Amino acid sequence: VKKWLVNGMPATSIDVADRGLHYGDGLFETVALREGRPRFLESHAERLSRGLHRLGISAAGVDAAMLEVEQLARSHTFGVAKIIITRGGGPRGYRPPAEEEPTRIVGADDAKPSPAEYYAQGIALRYCETQVSANAATAGLKTLNRIEQVLARAEWDDPSIVEGLMLNDRTEIVSGTMSNVFRISGSDLHTPPLVKSGIAGIMRAKVLEVAPSANLRVSEATIRPEELRQTDELFVTNSQIGIWPVRRIGELKTAVGPRTRELMQCLVALGVKECAR
Amino acid sequence: VKKWLVNGMPATSIDVADRGLHYGDGLFETVALREGRPRFLESHAERLSRGLHRLGISAAGVDAAMLEVEQLARSHTFGVAKIIITRGGGPRGYRPPAEEEPTRIVGADDAKPSPAEYYAQGIALRYCETQVSANAATAGLKTLNRIEQVLARAEWDDPSIVEGLMLNDRTEIVSGTMSNVFRISGSDLHTPPLVKSGIAGIMRAKVLEVAPSANLRVSEATIRPEELRQTDELFVTNSQIGIWPVRRIGELKTAVGPRTRELMQCLVALGVKECAR
Repeated sequence: VKKWLVNGMPATSIDVADRGLHYGDGLFETVALREGRPRFLESHAERLSRGLHRLGISAAGVDAAMLEVEQLARSHTFGVAKIIITRGGGPRGYRPPAEEEPTRIVGADDAKPSPAEYYAQGIALRYCETQVSANAATAGLKTLNRIEQVLARAEWDDPSIVEGLMLNDRTEIVSGTMSNVFRISGSDLHTPPLVKSGIAGIMRAKVLEVAPSANLRVSEATIRPEELRQTDELFVTNSQIGIWPVRRIGELKTAVGPRTRELMQCLVALGVKECAR
Repeated sequence: VKKWLVNGMPATSIDVADRGLHYGDGLFETVALREGRPRFLESHAERLSRGLHRLGISAAGVDAAMLEVEQLARSHTFGVAKIIITRGGGPRGYRPPAEEEPTRIVGADDAKPSPAEYYAQGIALRYCETQVSANAATAGLKTLNRIEQVLARAEWDDPSIVEGLMLNDRTEIVSGTMSNVFRISGSDLHTPPLVKSGIAGIMRAKVLEVAPSANLRVSEATIRPEELRQTDELFVTNSQIGIWPVRRIGELKTAVGPRTRELMQCLVALGVKECAR
């Protein structure tokens, strides 16, 4: 059962004047809940604090949000928590109010584990027509401005296609609609940089962290669709799923290979047990 | 006093799970209320319907929203109404739910007329560092994704600067943070195209409509900061203000000229009486 806390109190609604609704003026996190505990909670807290700082929103509520996530997590063996912090209410207009009172929203719910075959055989991807726009001011941030992802995800119904890749206006792959993307070529692990767009995923960071121990050289690099023909392995990540290997992208078949398997085992060691399936 | 209707019922809050909050998955309109009547309501309704269609959100609630605006308008001699239509609630994830129930939010409040000197002597503008991103999928739309405008408006405190111009990553002027921008050179009236970014402002459309009767040749054209040195007149528009002539942009002084005055008189004839001040 979905449960929400708004500024610490059980609630089902928020102020209709909240800037989160009017402008998407805030950030969110989705935290995996496993066996009654939030996973990588400290990483989420750090990212949220850094992001709020970049937006000029007080991060004073982050600690409380984390305690609330821990509290809500107890009733979930396999679930997901969502944290939203907005700039709060205020007078009409884009200008942030002089006296901000951020709104803290924390919710938790049970989640359905991904199908075992996603991990075992890999998933099929497509290319989305909806592009990701570029803006250094919000690059890397998980802001509440997600209409591009909504439009991209609305492009397909076919349940055999699990995720869509989004490109920027230079035809470079930025990310999946809800995941980061990685390619492996030889012993090089590449993922797109976050200078102009994309989200600095928590699982992305964990993969970059463990990659050297899997003898992979890590670097941020642009990835173009045509380069995927010369790619050995391809996978996507997010905090709820860990790693999903990719077996097909559009018409191009890709191998689910040993290096992705090794990275998945590294994540299992960090507590991402679904990658053991 | 601010008053809100949510799906037709007086309310102060919305569902915490609404996609408007989570993703900015919706559109808004701000309608000027003058002497108990909404101004250009039909134009707002048309723009809103077209925009919802582009986002794949049902426009079935637009008529009801317009009736609600008319109803709320009665208690305001000089005010502003805001309409928000979101894709509504639904399960977690970017994917739009199969059965959408859009949320309709309508609010009205008194407003303060702009200072008379804005119309008489013109306003001062600055250039914002925060860029506008480009995306054909949302160009022209007044979506709830407005974090770029929030960050741009947060850049300055100086009350003598009334508006900020935002550029795209090609250093072309897109718009003000809350206004469209026009330049006049000889008998040419230019405003930036909306192919990649910007909002299709209602007052922008009215100006384009009346310009030929003021003997101005209208065209959409990119405007670069350096071109403003060769510009005769410059002004900004939005639905609440009509036209504000520009007297200064950064260090560059611009003349508040006769052609802008003539356009202002044309708008007065359409009911934008504040332009007569």
